[in-house]
Amino acid sequence: MRKRILTGDRPTGKLHLGHYVGSLKNRVKLQDEYECFFIVADLHTLTTKSDSKSISEVSQNIKNLVLDYLSVGIDPKRSTIFIQSKIPEISELALIFSMLTSISRLERVPSLKEMIRDLKIESPSYGLLGYPVLQAADILIVRANLVPVGKDQESHVEVTREIARRFNGLYGEVFPETEALIGEVATLVGTDGKAKMSKSLDNCIYLSDSPETVKSKVMKMYTDPTRIHPTDPGHIEGNPVFIYHDAFNKNKGEVEELKARYKKGTVGDVEVKDKLNKALNGFLDPIREKRNKLEKNKGLVEDILAEGTKKTKEEAEKTLCLVKKTMGLDYF
Amino acid sequence: MRKRILTGDRPTGKLHLGHYVGSLKNRVKLQDEYECFFIVADLHTLTTKSDSKSISEVSQNIKNLVLDYLSVGIDPKRSTIFIQSKIPEISELALIFSMLTSISRLERVPSLKEMIRDLKIESPSYGLLGYPVLQAADILIVRANLVPVGKDQESHVEVTREIARRFNGLYGEVFPETEALIGEVATLVGTDGKAKMSKSLDNCIYLSDSPETVKSKVMKMYTDPTRIHPTDPGHIEGNPVFIYHDAFNKNKGEVEELKARYKKGTVGDVEVKDKLNKALNGFLDPIREKRNKLEKNKGLVEDILAEGTKKTKEEAEKTLCLVKKTMGLDYF
Repeated sequence: MRKRILTGDRPTGKLHLGHYVGSLKNRVKLQDEYECFFIVADLHTLTTKSDSKSISEVSQNIKNLVLDYLSVGIDPKRSTIFIQSKIPEISELALIFSMLTSISRLERVPSLKEMIRDLKIESPSYGLLGYPVLQAADILIVRANLVPVGKDQESHVEVTREIARRFNGLYGEVFPETEALIGEVATLVGTDGKAKMSKSLDNCIYLSDSPETVKSKVMKMYTDPTRIHPTDPGHIEGNPVFIYHDAFNKNKGEVEELKARYKKGTVGDVEVKDKLNKALNGFLDPIREKRNKLEKNKGLVEDILAEGTKKTKEEAEKTLCLVKKTMGLDYF
Repeated sequence: MRKRILTGDRPTGKLHLGHYVGSLKNRVKLQDEYECFFIVADLHTLTTKSDSKSISEVSQNIKNLVLDYLSVGIDPKRSTIFIQSKIPEISELALIFSMLTSISRLERVPSLKEMIRDLKIESPSYGLLGYPVLQAADILIVRANLVPVGKDQESHVEVTREIARRFNGLYGEVFPETEALIGEVATLVGTDGKAKMSKSLDNCIYLSDSPETVKSKVMKMYTDPTRIHPTDPGHIEGNPVFIYHDAFNKNKGEVEELKARYKKGTVGDVEVKDKLNKALNGFLDPIREKRNKLEKNKGLVEDILAEGTKKTKEEAEKTLCLVKKTMGLDYF
């Protein structure tokens, strides 16, 4: 039997090239070898954005997210895409898991501390502290064997594994001890050269950006700040333009030639960017084309979500039934 | 429309006279004026007793609890008795509420601190900290207006009210601001004279105790420790035997006469206890008789629970549907 994977995203906005490099590209490949469940984690958005305005955007964000998934090659015939809040069994399992996790364990999760610091949260909610518990329920409701994660999220899978182990030890074997599947490339620098492409930093190129938008963003990209004239020798390392060339330009010969000329000071930024623009749009063209087709097919996203959610619900019911039986909570 | 009440118990064992005085007596009366929902809070037992052995006792505890309810006069034709874990909507609502409650607020709940101290819990679970959030979901899933509580539980209803207010303010009016209905008598001393009748102190007279057991427990009861001989003048205040006489002996003349003779030193403990035994068994006889009848009716408890749970589930579905609609989480 194929091993099962669970991964997904919070529906907070359109996906960008950073998502592609960091997860989507990998997910598309994983479909060949694994049974993949992709969760649209709408309840997780409430941990940090529970106001009415944020929630009112979730529905549109879900549609865009699924369109992004499908247009890069996630295949709903082979993989399952579902909405978290439509699976009540996740909430039930999270409540049971909440009894098996200590407060002090959750307080030690590094990503929680980072979130509280980065979002400047003055009084963290009970739900935010329980983020890793809910995540464990997401993962274990389908009894996933593997979770592809970035290096900084390993700790979340650790909590899941600890909960699975604790449950199995207390009541009997129900859950696999889920493992992290750490991808090669974790992050992509932003167009402004900052460490990470991120919506809140406004330094993203989105998968759904038009060719004109991509061109305009590329032309404004940061390059080598020490280089004043096109005839100055430039630096390649940490230079966003060349990082993007490496990631997206299929013409490796062209990239090598540009790098060589850049170091010698025989190529201007405009030419380097122009070629990057062509490469990026060349990469994005088939994605856009697929997206356009999908968008014309009214009701398609809804149908895919309905089907994936139905399939996941069946799995979730099986798991919860087994959980209650194993615990001895299946009375009456 | 009649106001709605939610109250109930964790299914941890048989109910005793302390429960009767502290809550059951009141609940029986409340049925005349209010629409009552009685929750069998089995998920709450997991906050402190999540081991397999404890869980294996829950099913029998639930049956005993419902038999206790019915035999003292809780009427399933007028009131609704349901099992918490059979209502997934409670878990879903608790998860939503977890986003609306701060950790620091929960840490300030006094009963949580007491529980951690009394049960000597070294590393409290995340679920234990969230006890008041789950309780808010229990109460608000049926949109109860009132919760009859002992004085020491007022703080729990406060958290519920704060959550209701916060939800209504953020998203729109869904929940009433539940109020506490504080009963007259909060606690009954144990047979050993300790402040509270409590299973763990082994100082209880159970509603289901046989006449012989009651007699034996009464004869061993603590009285006035300063009184050595039946001819010594005795104290009435804080004397468990007279507290029980006051609470359960319908013959007020007899009680006054015994008190007067006790103070003068003209009555022995044996006579006082003998009369208390008669009074208590006189009180318990019709309860036992009803219980015997009910126990003979196989499947009755199961049917009552099934019907009450069905009715509650319908209410819970309505509430959760309204919650999701009001929040804007009712997409697709």
